Formats: sequence, C-alpha cells, structure tokens
Amino acid sequence: MIDKAIEALKNGEIILIYDSDDRESETDMITAAEFMTTEKMTTIRKYAGGLVCMPISNENCDKLGIPFMVDILKEANEKYPVLKDLYPNDIPYDAKSAFSITVNYRDTYTGIPDTDRSKTERELALLCKEGKQAEFGKYFRSPGHVTLLRAEKDAVLTREGHTELTIALLEMAGLEPVGICCEMIGDNGEAMSVDKTREYAQKNNHVFISGDEIIEAYKEFKNNN
Amino acid sequence: MIDKAIEALKNGEIILIYDSDDRESETDMITAAEFMTTEKMTTIRKYAGGLVCMPISNENCDKLGIPFMVDILKEANEKYPVLKDLYPNDIPYDAKSAFSITVNYRDTYTGIPDTDRSKTERELALLCKEGKQAEFGKYFRSPGHVTLLRAEKDAVLTREGHTELTIALLEMAGLEPVGICCEMIGDNGEAMSVDKTREYAQKNNHVFISGDEIIEAYKEFKNNN
Repeated sequence: MIDKAIEALKNGEIILIYDSDDRESETDMITAAEFMTTEKMTTIRKYAGGLVCMPISNENCDKLGIPFMVDILKEANEKYPVLKDLYPNDIPYDAKSAFSITVNYRDTYTGIPDTDRSKTERELALLCKEGKQAEFGKYFRSPGHVTLLRAEKDAVLTREGHTELTIALLEMAGLEPVGICCEMIGDNGEAMSVDKTREYAQKNNHVFISGDEIIEAYKEFKNNN
Repeated sequence: MIDKAIEALKNGEIILIYDSDDRESETDMITAAEFMTTEKMTTIRKYAGGLVCMPISNENCDKLGIPFMVDILKEANEKYPVLKDLYPNDIPYDAKSAFSITVNYRDTYTGIPDTDRSKTERELALLCKEGKQAEFGKYFRSPGHVTLLRAEKDAVLTREGHTELTIALLEMAGLEPVGICCEMIGDNGEAMSVDKTREYAQKNNHVFISGDEIIEAYKEFKNNN
C-alpha cells in the first residue's frame, strides 16, 4: 500500500491516513500542498471537517524561522501571565502538540473561502520548493486562517503524529515536505471510526494507509538514503 | 428582525448574520456559546464550513487575561524575528483582525471532533457566566482547536466585524457575551453569496439579519441602558 500512497501523492490525490489505536485513533485526509486546488480544499472541508492544517518539515520550519506555538506563548507569558496557566501539559495522546503559527497568503481577501485557503497552502509549499523561505513575511501574514504544524526532526522516527506521517510520506515521494492534513469527523460528531473511513476511502477511490505501514517504510527509506 | 434574532439566540438557535457589502461580504452562522451542543457544532461544521471561532466580549477577554494574537506575536518577535515580517498590516477589509489565542477544554481528547469542540465552547461560556474567569487556565489549555476572537470595547460602536456583531446581539439578548461564529462557504469554494445564504436561512428556518440592522438596534440599546 505504501507504493500506492506515494504514487497517489505524486499525482496530487488526497489519501487517508489512520494513525493508530494507541494514539489519536483518527483518520486524516492528507495531500501534498504544492498541488493544492480550490476543489481539493472543498472536498477536505466538506468530507473531512476537522481543522485544516499544514504539516511542515522540521528543516523547512527552521528555514522559515517558525517555532512551536507553545514557544511563542512562553515568550509572551511574562506580559500575559494567563498563558502560563494555559500551558498544555496534559495532552492525552502525546507529550506535545505540533501547533505552530497561523497564516494567510497576503494576496487573499478574508483568507477563509476554499479559494483563499488553497492559495495560502499552495503558495507556501511553492515558496519552500523554490528555496525562498527567507521571503516568508513578504508574501504571508500572521495570524491567519491556516494552521501550520511543525514536524519533528527525522519525522516518524521521533514522533508518530499525523504531522510526521504526512512529512514522511512526502519525503519518500520526493515532494516538497509541506502537506495538508484534516481530521475526518462523522455525522454523529465523533472522530469517524476506522471502519467508516476505510469504507469512505473505498467508495471514493482514496488510498487508505495506516501509520504503522508508513513508519516501517520510512525506517527502510532512511536506512537506504 | 432584531427581535426575532434576539429571541432565536435566547432559544439557543443558530442565526445567520451578513456583515455588509463594504466589509467581508460574508454571512456567518452565529449562536450563543452557553447553549452549544454537539448537534449544533455538527451543523455549523457541515453547512457553514469556515473557521469555527468564538467571539468574546472585551470585558470577558480582560478578565480572562487574553490579548490579541498580534500582541502575543509582538512579544515573541525578538526571539523569532520572522514574526515581525509576518505582521498583518495589509488586511483588505479592516485595520486589524480579532484573532486571539486558540484553546481546548482540558477534559477533551484530541479537541477536534464536534463532541470536543462543542464542550470547549460551552464550558468557556459557562466559566465566564459563573464569573470564574480567573480559573481559565485550570480548565483550558492553549494552543487548541477553537480560535478565540477578542471583541472591541463597545462592540459594533467601535468595529463592525462579525465578532462585534455577535457580541452586540448577545448583549441585547441578555446572554453571556461569548458566542460562536463561522463563515458560510459555497460548493464553488467562494464565500457563499448573500442570495444563497438568505435562501439557506429560509429553507432551514434560521433567522437572517444584516449587520446594519444590528448596529442600528445596538445604538438605541446603548442609549437606553
């Protein structure tokens, strides 16, 4: 399935990743940000429904100069002491969240329609692809409507979240390691069960892959590269 | 229509607010956060589709101790200089955005399913309603999956965004000025046109009201109170 997943990402398709029973137990829609379109953004918004985020490789985050949001809140917590009280020391499924800053591409209007969000997403991937990370602030503003996620170094070898699973796959696909991910929520308001997301994948011709498969393939990939 | 809008909010209903042709030209689904349920969160996620945010009155923000996100980024921009470059000095429809921090209620799992998001939203409104703003950090963590919006003092008398329109209505309704708002996006990926949102309101029995009507009513309300 790993080859199919990589092929699908190269073709700009949306694939589904289920992390694991031991973690969030959530399936995310994933795709490469460099190929993002309004149509794909509409699909993700309507049929995934979670928070639309952008996993970004550790290396790209360093070049862009963006830390974790917790690190930003820490810098501000002397002036705004409540930020200390709000510290996320009790996330049930991991030691910390991957949240970084939120952005809009400057050449958008409100930033929230699918037209605007997909433009923000695609342009950020292309900025990285073209090695123009130093010009980040020229083309983007913060805060905005797209949440960036900072992947750990060595991706899934360090952390097994959807952020790192996305980056691992994009790396193996030889694509710019800047992706889109969004949690799939069911009509009952709960995270969609893995049976339901597997069924959705089959019906709508999306590749479905588990976190474990990605982690195994990535270990091999890293050994050979 | 203002009386119907106020009545609907008191009943925990979702109403639709169109700001104006001169501003975002967007219709938002709005409701009182204190009555938030999983079902309403599912409706908002599926049929509005934008970023689910929480407008909070200026007074409540001060009691909670939360500034604008731009002010937080400013505190951190010596350590992370790109935050200076990303400064949002070019928002097309206003001088600044209302974005504050993002939060999750601590007693949630990932924070993103409708069950979790609605709990975060309801509990934050109830915390304010019960005057327990000083205990914010005991019950909530940041960053999270619900974006808080800081309303200006005197709401729509100062700024005419959806944030202030929501707060003005909640105040007139005598409800805790902590709301939910979410932009309505169309199947074509653009902000849903006002004709389409008006039609949606009629079909689905939501009160539809314009920003101008709210501003006029709020001016009168402030004169009499």
